[in-house]
Amino acid sequence: VRAEIVAVGTELLLGQIVNTNERWLGERLAAIGVDVLHAQVVGDNLDRIVQALRLAASRADAVLVTGGLGPTQDDLTRDALAALLGVGMQRDPAIERFLRERFRAFGYDEMPANNLRQADVPRGVRTILPTRGTAPGLIARVGDGATIYVVPGVPSEMVEMMEGTILPELAAQAEGAIVSRVLRSASIGESRVAELLADLYEGSTNPTVAFLASAGEVKIRLTAKAGTAADAGRMLAPLVDEVRARLGDVVFTTEDESLEEVVLRLLRASERTIACAESLTGGGVGARLSGPPGASASFRGSAVVYTPEVKRDVLGVSQATLDGPGVVSEACAREMAAGARRVYGADLGLAFTGAAGPEPHDGAPPGTVWIALEADDTAHARGLHVPGERDRVVRWSQQAGLDLARRYLEGLPLPASEP
Amino acid sequence: VRAEIVAVGTELLLGQIVNTNERWLGERLAAIGVDVLHAQVVGDNLDRIVQALRLAASRADAVLVTGGLGPTQDDLTRDALAALLGVGMQRDPAIERFLRERFRAFGYDEMPANNLRQADVPRGVRTILPTRGTAPGLIARVGDGATIYVVPGVPSEMVEMMEGTILPELAAQAEGAIVSRVLRSASIGESRVAELLADLYEGSTNPTVAFLASAGEVKIRLTAKAGTAADAGRMLAPLVDEVRARLGDVVFTTEDESLEEVVLRLLRASERTIACAESLTGGGVGARLSGPPGASASFRGSAVVYTPEVKRDVLGVSQATLDGPGVVSEACAREMAAGARRVYGADLGLAFTGAAGPEPHDGAPPGTVWIALEADDTAHARGLHVPGERDRVVRWSQQAGLDLARRYLEGLPLPASEP
Repeated sequence: VRAEIVAVGTELLLGQIVNTNERWLGERLAAIGVDVLHAQVVGDNLDRIVQALRLAASRADAVLVTGGLGPTQDDLTRDALAALLGVGMQRDPAIERFLRERFRAFGYDEMPANNLRQADVPRGVRTILPTRGTAPGLIARVGDGATIYVVPGVPSEMVEMMEGTILPELAAQAEGAIVSRVLRSASIGESRVAELLADLYEGSTNPTVAFLASAGEVKIRLTAKAGTAADAGRMLAPLVDEVRARLGDVVFTTEDESLEEVVLRLLRASERTIACAESLTGGGVGARLSGPPGASASFRGSAVVYTPEVKRDVLGVSQATLDGPGVVSEACAREMAAGARRVYGADLGLAFTGAAGPEPHDGAPPGTVWIALEADDTAHARGLHVPGERDRVVRWSQQAGLDLARRYLEGLPLPASEP
Repeated sequence: VRAEIVAVGTELLLGQIVNTNERWLGERLAAIGVDVLHAQVVGDNLDRIVQALRLAASRADAVLVTGGLGPTQDDLTRDALAALLGVGMQRDPAIERFLRERFRAFGYDEMPANNLRQADVPRGVRTILPTRGTAPGLIARVGDGATIYVVPGVPSEMVEMMEGTILPELAAQAEGAIVSRVLRSASIGESRVAELLADLYEGSTNPTVAFLASAGEVKIRLTAKAGTAADAGRMLAPLVDEVRARLGDVVFTTEDESLEEVVLRLLRASERTIACAESLTGGGVGARLSGPPGASASFRGSAVVYTPEVKRDVLGVSQATLDGPGVVSEACAREMAAGARRVYGADLGLAFTGAAGPEPHDGAPPGTVWIALEADDTAHARGLHVPGERDRVVRWSQQAGLDLARRYLEGLPLPASEP
């Protein structure tokens, strides 16, 4: 099965948003053995959308279209599909009923008239009613050629229809399977990963080895293609072991878990709890630790303390520390971690303080970071220098702190301060 | 000038990386008045790259190609350009010299033989020597039609050649400038915005009106094209006023500020401070309020309290409330807001509690949300029902809470609970 992705939306061409749907679709289609040979982006223009669909249908078996299904006048994908198929539009009573019920459930007395546009579909197409949002998906065959699948551009609505309806349909048609395993590592650079895995990576065809770096994390993606998913999985297993053996304990998952998911899993397994003290990170670590469902079993909370006074009043950081080494210091990080553990009654206290920039903070230059962990038998602090913009400093620090907790929970040696 | 973007690379089609180059190019081209009508992605396949270039050259004045300039056998864009132009390849002595020097400077005794591929270019093209990396850029005219610009896919190398050479060339050819103004609104749906602005929007060509909805927010983008940026700005000013007049006080900015930036600006202007109490949102509101540089002038912190005990111990929520209405209740939200204000010594206390799902929380069904604001003369609570997944409930609640603070600071009426 050959697929093509067509994204509709002038906002994509103007660079107002990134086309993350394309990446998601590419990854998921690869996983079920569907080859994507082309992708297109086209603006909100009827003629150009029709041309893009026609080109895609001429060279692919499955055309996956995202966007242009909203209720406004510049949502033109429905009309473009009708023009391509050479059919008229008709109001679908099931969709109209669904829309009116959806708006009632949202607490509206009346549905805005515009939304009825979403009940008008090209004659003879199949529709997919959404669980989220109000835009139905569309499925149509072009003659006896390509099948066109149209889904909303809103990522969560797109994902729902792809996972619920379209990917299973395509998987049933595709031959073979592509399976990926993703290992993730923290506290190691991409070039060091590349060096350690050079011979596995160079010229790799099946399985393939690829790297992807982001702030404080390198993903290693191993991908195999075989007759069945089980066979592809068997091809990958020894390679996963080899990569893990070479990289060592910087690998925090072989199952593509996020670092916070790993920390929460380790906490749950050992029936322990964590609380944070955040200055530098402003609540971002709490937001990450509270993100996964079931987090409340292990995450007790976080004291976001953004001024010296509240560090003292809420967490008990000493006036001597504030007056002496200051808020960006090893002493302050240690007292914050101890305070969070005490105030929240948690087994682990994890603290973050630093100068995110662009200005120095309490005498410390931008990029100066202290993280600290306090637990039963351990009190550990680590200083870092993180170059870059404010958001990079914050993200890198989150990773370093969560990885410190992960290493503690796995009984691994804890990293020392950077020189 | 009409432009088209062509990204070359199988890794994009497999979803291993996101095509951020496309967004960057789209934004920068719009800013100099160049219209991007199409974008394509094509894999590392010679025939398909040639076809993609031919199609782009047939409908655009400028074709911007990223990727496929590396030293490996997979890097085929040079060959594809030669095939399109109908010319042979030749070794460029200036590039060869440059490459050998670059490798010496990197500390290599000898350049890998592969890298000489980067000195082979289609006969007659212009080249751009890089400052970063080793891949030269290429510029070629197709007959007397389109100009094709090829740059590396590595974002920093792409940016260097675009900013240094290509964007200035295109700007000199492009007539006029495109200027956008972005208004943002909260607590209003996209279809309601569309209804209120229907006549401004329908058939709008210059300026154009477009909407973009995300959880709890609708952006309205007004774009004008004119001879100069100043003229375009003058075309937009009355439209900005009109849109603002029609939508009313749900518009929280006409300058594309985020909601947290607006809240921080209003706090700074009135020399007031804020602190939060977060259960449902887990620290995400603190992370947003601490994100912008200079936040520490107004943001004092946030008590992330994820269990009933810490709500009581850290914020002073009463045992009677915990035992009675429970943690997802108006009473709990009000006591949390009062507690945050008191503990942090802030002028405003803003609290978030609710059931994010997927399971009910303390008897409340998923999507039940209470937010509360306590300030000098005001104690206000608002109940919401937010349908959807965990992350949507959290994001929507953040918006509703921050907008409550914004409305209070602007002296606007505060919204009541949903029925």
